[in-house]
Amino acid sequence: MNFYETDARRLALWVQYESSLREALEAWHRRTYWCAFPEEPKAYGEEVLAQGETAFKSQLNRPFERLRQPARRWLLSDEVSPYTREPLGISYPQVDVAEALYHAQEALSRWRWVPYTERIGLLMESIHRFSKHFSEVAQATMHTTGQAWMMAFQASGPHAADRAVEALAVAYEELSHIPPYVRWTRELGKGQAVIDKYFIPQPEGLSLHIGVSTFPVWNVLPGLYASLAVGSPVLMKPHPRAIYPIAVVVSILQSTFEEYGLPPTIVQLIPDTVAEPITKTLAEHPLIRIIDYTGSTEFGNYLESLPGKITFLEKAGVNGVLIESVEDMEAVAKNLAFSASLYSGQMCTAPQNIYIPREGIRTAQGILSYEEVVAALTKAIEDLASHPKAAPAVLGALQNEGVVQRIERLAQMASVRRAPQAYTHPQYAAARTLTPIVAEPSDESLTRTEHFGPRLLTIPVENAQRGLEVLYEIAREKGMLSCAIYTTDADFKQKAIRLLAEAAIPISFNYRGQVFINQSVAFSDFHGTGGNPAGNASFTDAAFVVKRFRWIGVRDCLQG
Amino acid sequence: MNFYETDARRLALWVQYESSLREALEAWHRRTYWCAFPEEPKAYGEEVLAQGETAFKSQLNRPFERLRQPARRWLLSDEVSPYTREPLGISYPQVDVAEALYHAQEALSRWRWVPYTERIGLLMESIHRFSKHFSEVAQATMHTTGQAWMMAFQASGPHAADRAVEALAVAYEELSHIPPYVRWTRELGKGQAVIDKYFIPQPEGLSLHIGVSTFPVWNVLPGLYASLAVGSPVLMKPHPRAIYPIAVVVSILQSTFEEYGLPPTIVQLIPDTVAEPITKTLAEHPLIRIIDYTGSTEFGNYLESLPGKITFLEKAGVNGVLIESVEDMEAVAKNLAFSASLYSGQMCTAPQNIYIPREGIRTAQGILSYEEVVAALTKAIEDLASHPKAAPAVLGALQNEGVVQRIERLAQMASVRRAPQAYTHPQYAAARTLTPIVAEPSDESLTRTEHFGPRLLTIPVENAQRGLEVLYEIAREKGMLSCAIYTTDADFKQKAIRLLAEAAIPISFNYRGQVFINQSVAFSDFHGTGGNPAGNASFTDAAFVVKRFRWIGVRDCLQG
Repeated sequence: MNFYETDARRLALWVQYESSLREALEAWHRRTYWCAFPEEPKAYGEEVLAQGETAFKSQLNRPFERLRQPARRWLLSDEVSPYTREPLGISYPQVDVAEALYHAQEALSRWRWVPYTERIGLLMESIHRFSKHFSEVAQATMHTTGQAWMMAFQASGPHAADRAVEALAVAYEELSHIPPYVRWTRELGKGQAVIDKYFIPQPEGLSLHIGVSTFPVWNVLPGLYASLAVGSPVLMKPHPRAIYPIAVVVSILQSTFEEYGLPPTIVQLIPDTVAEPITKTLAEHPLIRIIDYTGSTEFGNYLESLPGKITFLEKAGVNGVLIESVEDMEAVAKNLAFSASLYSGQMCTAPQNIYIPREGIRTAQGILSYEEVVAALTKAIEDLASHPKAAPAVLGALQNEGVVQRIERLAQMASVRRAPQAYTHPQYAAARTLTPIVAEPSDESLTRTEHFGPRLLTIPVENAQRGLEVLYEIAREKGMLSCAIYTTDADFKQKAIRLLAEAAIPISFNYRGQVFINQSVAFSDFHGTGGNPAGNASFTDAAFVVKRFRWIGVRDCLQG
Repeated sequence: MNFYETDARRLALWVQYESSLREALEAWHRRTYWCAFPEEPKAYGEEVLAQGETAFKSQLNRPFERLRQPARRWLLSDEVSPYTREPLGISYPQVDVAEALYHAQEALSRWRWVPYTERIGLLMESIHRFSKHFSEVAQATMHTTGQAWMMAFQASGPHAADRAVEALAVAYEELSHIPPYVRWTRELGKGQAVIDKYFIPQPEGLSLHIGVSTFPVWNVLPGLYASLAVGSPVLMKPHPRAIYPIAVVVSILQSTFEEYGLPPTIVQLIPDTVAEPITKTLAEHPLIRIIDYTGSTEFGNYLESLPGKITFLEKAGVNGVLIESVEDMEAVAKNLAFSASLYSGQMCTAPQNIYIPREGIRTAQGILSYEEVVAALTKAIEDLASHPKAAPAVLGALQNEGVVQRIERLAQMASVRRAPQAYTHPQYAAARTLTPIVAEPSDESLTRTEHFGPRLLTIPVENAQRGLEVLYEIAREKGMLSCAIYTTDADFKQKAIRLLAEAAIPISFNYRGQVFINQSVAFSDFHGTGGNPAGNASFTDAAFVVKRFRWIGVRDCLQG
């Protein structure tokens, strides 16, 4: 009995990609260093990088014509480059919500019956096609998010593609660990029962993906590919200020689907504007069953409260650092300064609250006082922020004016150790820039809010043990996507794990040198834990996939 | 670095049970016939069976003193035997909700840090100890639920134990597929980064398990063992009319925990009474994060609406049967009559609505009219209900008076083909009994409600295709835990799968002989799909386990 819609060309794609998918799955299990796509731009060739820049330039101030979805009108987007402060001038095809849902339902009736192997083969193909466009997407990301070019390339390119492959690998594992068919027999008193059993994975329904302005690709691809892998069409609703990067990905998926005999509307781009948002209309629609989202806690909580939805949310958190003891304070300060400065602190994993015992900390060179630690951190920030090459490469630009205002408000309410300042970008004179503030909050409530942007708050605590307790409390109350502990004491390390893991805090000990707490790498790290108020999901564990589909058991009794 | 609480004796248990757990896991993947515990009572020995009866008799009218949990007072239960109509007269230790939660939190702080292998070893040991008590639990089940002895033995004994082993096997798979520790290294420009990574599974929090009066053990063990396996202590709130069977299981778990150096309060029995229910107080408490429940749709929907809870719900449904064509109508009628009569239809998987084309059905002996099909069904029910040995063995007794009233109401509102009647139980003259009604509903709304109890509704439909559509609509609107289709037409079969799977209906084709649609067997069948309004969970897929815990990533940078 075959109720699936099979196709020889799609099957050939699966055969082509099966071994690399299995390799990815093995890496996911092993969790040592591995990647599907190298992160070094040079691996992709000078020519490809140059082509990307050309493609980007010729897309500016023109309609985005690469999508294969029905559209009623063209929507001029709110995208403005944080570097040039010029609108990108790109318009995108827009469709009514009701029509988009109609097309998605039509697509669902096809896509759900394509065997998962063929689906995964097609999706692997789309990722490989996407890899030819990393350079254009890097430009698009840079000029929508404000990321520096290298981060834009890596985060929206190879790192995102790796996370997509990871999602497919886990989906493959979960979809393949129940057989599609088995003949069940059992000896009974007088004869034998023979039952053919079919196990059919079916998606929970349609997916809505709500993008974010700071990481319009990296934060999207895991959920997008997880939903598609289990047979759920996706309505991709990007942030109105960061549409272009993900529009490229959607267009590649659409043309791949179309080329292989399937409706391109298995994924649709649903753009909106800041003035006329449509996210709530989409999210509340009963046909939408699965929602992926990155953004504010308030909107995340609203999504979580909608009845009958399966949500994968990344919300705000208050990331903490505790310095108990270190080998070398300068190395630690340098590492933390980099983490706080990277993309001007506009990362959900950037450190914010640095807890330092009032009694000072032990180092290889003796005790350092609280003030000395603060001074070391301030100096490291200053060194980076005033470095003419490092500043633009690391800090990039601010995505929007709100970040500037937020940090200025913080400066007014805290005791400032280092004032935030604009720096002059060597290439883009108009760039919206700001170097990190270092401040000691005068009011405890300031330490319980996320001040998304370039900032470090230094906070004295009675002692290191009390510091652990504060981290625990903040994580339980506000959530935490990253947490750094510096200690040379094995007992303290153990104590920290026992306490903080109970609040579902992901912990990084003694990060220094060339590794940073902001980074979570595919095939090895989860992104957060999904177990504290900063989010209910983490890329990519089994839960990230299995919540999206159901097993339908079909039993065919041949002999009873 | 070891932050777990390990113990050599517990580890020895794991070593003892590891191979049988792996065997169970292989069976779960293979999904051919397999069981951990044989279902034939004789496999357990005459003596053990007799001991069980003795234990049951000596427990009646006495306090249940086997629990190892703090208690303030003894609570006389509402349990009344559906066979003797006498109260069981058993009292159970009762504790305040606040105290129970306090003890559960204390237990959580230990249990979450016991390595999952040791946890699973201990839990396997508890199941094996439980198997020595199948006979007592069979008596306890019979005299609380009204099940006939054989069903009480199998459902509350080997079948439940198999489902518990299955939950442990899936938990083991999901907990072991991420390594507990790995050394991650990466060559960087000038040196090498070395990071030790630890992946720590942590439960979402405390579990509440809300039992049901008809299957007080079978419906509980999968969720109970899944929660315990991932490190979540469980507050076991049984149905006030069916405490005794699960109290035995809880007492065995408690003594096993205690014997192996752990708090017995890792699982606590929280009894209440019909007059003073405490379920809502428990369910709404913020410390309760995971809720397993079997029961009414109304209460299930209430639980689902509680913010911040992870729920595993089995609610009511309206199970449908469609007869399109058959080889042998008599064999089909006999099989359906048995399914409808088994435990007097008090199974969530019992058939209710039988759709028959007005134009009649094809059989090997020619066309049978609608009326002839109804007559065959009615005769099969009559034959079973009037059989002096079969009736008590199959029908058993009604759990409560509500079932009688419900079927009487139905009789008043429908066109009755066969009137429900009490039958005389040969052993228990006072037994609350009722043979099935066969009726044709005069009002369509009657077909959209579950009439939990001994009933079959015969419903004419325009044709078989329309029958499929009605099944689809009812499943979407009201939910369905089982669905039988009779057809000898391969095309119709395929069409049925394509349509019904989209409504997440589990389908059974052409059940006859010694296999019945009511039954779902561990290691092969899921229980429902969890994808329609009859429930959001199905024993035991990956989702049933992974929603209960989170991965906490700990990274220890040795060289940066």
